[in-house]
Amino acid sequence: MSNTKELDKKYILPTYARADVEFVSGSGARLVDVNDKKYIDFASGIGVVSVGHANKRVNDAITKQISQLTHTSNLYYITSQAEAAKKIVESSGYDMMCFFGNSGAEANEGAIKIARKFGEKDGEVKRYKVITLQNSFHGRTITTLKSTGQELMHNYFGPYPDGFVYANDIAQVESLLDNHTVAVMIELVQGEGGVEPLDKERIQALAKMLKEKNILLIVDEVQTGVYRTGEFLASNVYGIEPDIITLAKGLAGGVPIGVVMTSLKEVFSPGDHGSTFGGNFLSSRAACEVIDILDEYTKSGGLKEITEYFNHKLQEFCNSHKEVFTSKVGIGLMCGLRVRDGDTLAKIISNARDEGVIVLRAGRNTLRFLPPLTITKEEIDEGFISLNNAVTSL
Amino acid sequence: MSNTKELDKKYILPTYARADVEFVSGSGARLVDVNDKKYIDFASGIGVVSVGHANKRVNDAITKQISQLTHTSNLYYITSQAEAAKKIVESSGYDMMCFFGNSGAEANEGAIKIARKFGEKDGEVKRYKVITLQNSFHGRTITTLKSTGQELMHNYFGPYPDGFVYANDIAQVESLLDNHTVAVMIELVQGEGGVEPLDKERIQALAKMLKEKNILLIVDEVQTGVYRTGEFLASNVYGIEPDIITLAKGLAGGVPIGVVMTSLKEVFSPGDHGSTFGGNFLSSRAACEVIDILDEYTKSGGLKEITEYFNHKLQEFCNSHKEVFTSKVGIGLMCGLRVRDGDTLAKIISNARDEGVIVLRAGRNTLRFLPPLTITKEEIDEGFISLNNAVTSL
Repeated sequence: MSNTKELDKKYILPTYARADVEFVSGSGARLVDVNDKKYIDFASGIGVVSVGHANKRVNDAITKQISQLTHTSNLYYITSQAEAAKKIVESSGYDMMCFFGNSGAEANEGAIKIARKFGEKDGEVKRYKVITLQNSFHGRTITTLKSTGQELMHNYFGPYPDGFVYANDIAQVESLLDNHTVAVMIELVQGEGGVEPLDKERIQALAKMLKEKNILLIVDEVQTGVYRTGEFLASNVYGIEPDIITLAKGLAGGVPIGVVMTSLKEVFSPGDHGSTFGGNFLSSRAACEVIDILDEYTKSGGLKEITEYFNHKLQEFCNSHKEVFTSKVGIGLMCGLRVRDGDTLAKIISNARDEGVIVLRAGRNTLRFLPPLTITKEEIDEGFISLNNAVTSL
Repeated sequence: MSNTKELDKKYILPTYARADVEFVSGSGARLVDVNDKKYIDFASGIGVVSVGHANKRVNDAITKQISQLTHTSNLYYITSQAEAAKKIVESSGYDMMCFFGNSGAEANEGAIKIARKFGEKDGEVKRYKVITLQNSFHGRTITTLKSTGQELMHNYFGPYPDGFVYANDIAQVESLLDNHTVAVMIELVQGEGGVEPLDKERIQALAKMLKEKNILLIVDEVQTGVYRTGEFLASNVYGIEPDIITLAKGLAGGVPIGVVMTSLKEVFSPGDHGSTFGGNFLSSRAACEVIDILDEYTKSGGLKEITEYFNHKLQEFCNSHKEVFTSKVGIGLMCGLRVRDGDTLAKIISNARDEGVIVLRAGRNTLRFLPPLTITKEEIDEGFISLNNAVTSL
C-alpha cells in the first residue's frame, strides 16, 4: 500500500486541494492508479502531456540525450536549444527569436520584461503599462499574479508592481490606452478563465489597431500553443501576428519548460535576462521530439481527424444531457461544456473519476477537456462511455 | 560539422554572451565538445550537475520513471513528490514543509509570498518589507530582480514592486528594521556576488535577533544547498534555523526544479500558490535519486574527503600564483580565488577553456569553482594541471 497521502500531508505545503487519486503509470491517454484502477485521461496534466503518457519517441529521445548530457549552462552553446528554437520559430511561421525558461509564469515574466524594455527611452521606462483582461490567468509569480485580471489573485502578496490595467473585454481595450501603454497581453482562448475563445474579428481588429499605435500585442499561448487549438499557435488560427508570444505546458511532453518568442530581436542585450536551467539539453531535446511528432501528425491529417472526432462526440454528449449542460465551447482540443448549475461541476468531475475518466474544471461553470492530442478514437469512445455514466448517476 | 552557432545566432535572443564552445557529451566531471576536445568541468553548469554528467543512477531512475509517468498534475497525489519532500525535510533536520516549482527564481518568489502572507493581518498586508543585501542575487523575475540588491539589476523592467530594502552588510540590517519589516532574505555564501561567505557568528546573532523580533529569516540556498557547502544546507553549516529556505540548482542533477521549504506550515491555504510542472514525477524522482546518492556519499565520508582534497589543491594553486591571486575563499565545494587584477579574469577563464578546464567568474574579481560534488581525485588533478597551464600562459 502506498503511504503517499500521509507523506503529502506531512511534507507538502497545503496549496493544493488534491483529488483523492494517485496515478502510478500511463500510456497514451490511459492512466492507472495505485489501486490498479484504470482511467481515460481527458486532461493530460492540464494540457501538458500533449503526446500522451510514456510516449516512446519522447522517452527514447530523453534517454539518449541524458546518456550524453542533461545540463551544461547557457554560458555555452546548447545544440538542442538551438534546434528547438528553430523548430518553434519555423512552426510558428513568424520571424522571431526565442528565450527559454522553465514555466509559463517565467515565459510571461520574459514577455513583460521585453515589452517594458521596448518602452524604455534614454534609460527611463516611459511606456510600461500592460493591459490585460479581467478573466485572464498569466501565472503565479508576484508580477504575473498582478498581470492576471482576476481580483481575487491580488491578495496577500503585495506590494504588487504597478503598471497593469484590466479591460473587461477586448472592446474596452482601446479606451484604456494612454501615453504610458506599451502592450496588451491576452490569451486567445482563456484557459483558467473558463475555456473562453475570444472573437476572431475583434482580435484581428485589435491587432491592427495596436500595430498602428505601435503598442505591442503579447499573446499568452501557455495553454493554447503547440497544436492545442489545431495549428501550431492559436495566433495562427486567429490569423494575427503578435509581437511577443509565450509557450509552456504542452511543449516538452511533461519536462518543465517555458519559452518567450518575439519579433523584437534587438530589445534584449547580453545580461538583460537569464535562466540557469532554461533550454538545457534535457528540456529542449524533449521539445524537439514533441514538435516533430506533432508536426508529422498534423501534416498527416491525424490531428484534424481526431479533433473532429472528439468534438463530434463532445457535442453529442452535450446534446444528450441538456439538463446539465448549456453549450459546448472551445477550439481544437481545448474544449469545454458550460454547466447549467455551477454546483454540480465538482460532482461531475468526481463522479467522472469514479467512473474512470479524468476531466477538469475551468472558471466557475465549465467542464474542461484537454486530452492528449494523440488520443485514439478507442480511448475517446471509452472516455465518453465513462463520462456518460458519471453524468447519468448525478 | 555543427551548425549550432548559426542557429543560435538566428533563433535565440541574444541575452547570453556565450563562450565559444559546444559540449556534446559528458561523464562525471568530464566533458567533450563538438570537436572532440576534452575538458574537466569545475563548474557543473553553475552548480547544477551535482552528481556529475550522465550519472548512471540518476539516469536509470529517470528512464524508469518516464517509462511509467512523467507528469500528471498537482491536482492529484504525486508519489515521487511526496518522497522527495520527505527526503529534503529529513536531510535538512528542520521541521518544515515544501512547495515545488521549477527554478531558483520561482522558489524565491514562493519565499517572498509566504513571508508577505505571514505579514498579513485581517486581510491587509501590514508587514511586507523584505531586507536583502547589496551584493545579493535572487533571480530574474521582476520581483526577484528587485529583491536582488545590485542596483544594475533594477533597470528597464519597472515599475518594480515596492517593499525591498537593501543592507550594505549584516551589521546594518538591524538599523533598517521598522514596523513594516516582515523578513530578511540572505544567501549564506553569496554566489553571483563573488563567492562571499558571510561571517558565522554575525549570522547566528542575526538569526537570534530576528527570532526575538518575530521577523522571518529567509535563506536563499539555491546555490549553497544540497551538500554544496559540505552539509545538506549551508544553514546546517551555520548552525541556524531559518523560517524559509529555497533550493534549486543542484537538487535534481540538471532537471529543472525549485523548492521553497518553511516551518510556517499554515500560512498557505489551497489556491494561494501553484505550479503546473512543479514537483512532477520526472523532476521529483530525479531529486530523490540525487539526494540518496549525496546522502550515502556524505555519510561514507566521500564528500568530506574530496572537499578537503579539492580545497588543498586549490590553496596550493593559489599559493603558487601569488602574482595573480590574492586569496582563496568559499565553503565546501563552493570556492573561489580572488584575482588581483579584475581584467585578467576573463582571460584566465578563456585560457582555462583552451587548456581543457571549465571555470566560472563571480562578481568582479573572483574565479569561481563549483565542481560536481562527486568529482574524483584524478579529475581534480587533471583539472589543476590544465588550470596551471592556463595561468602560466597569461
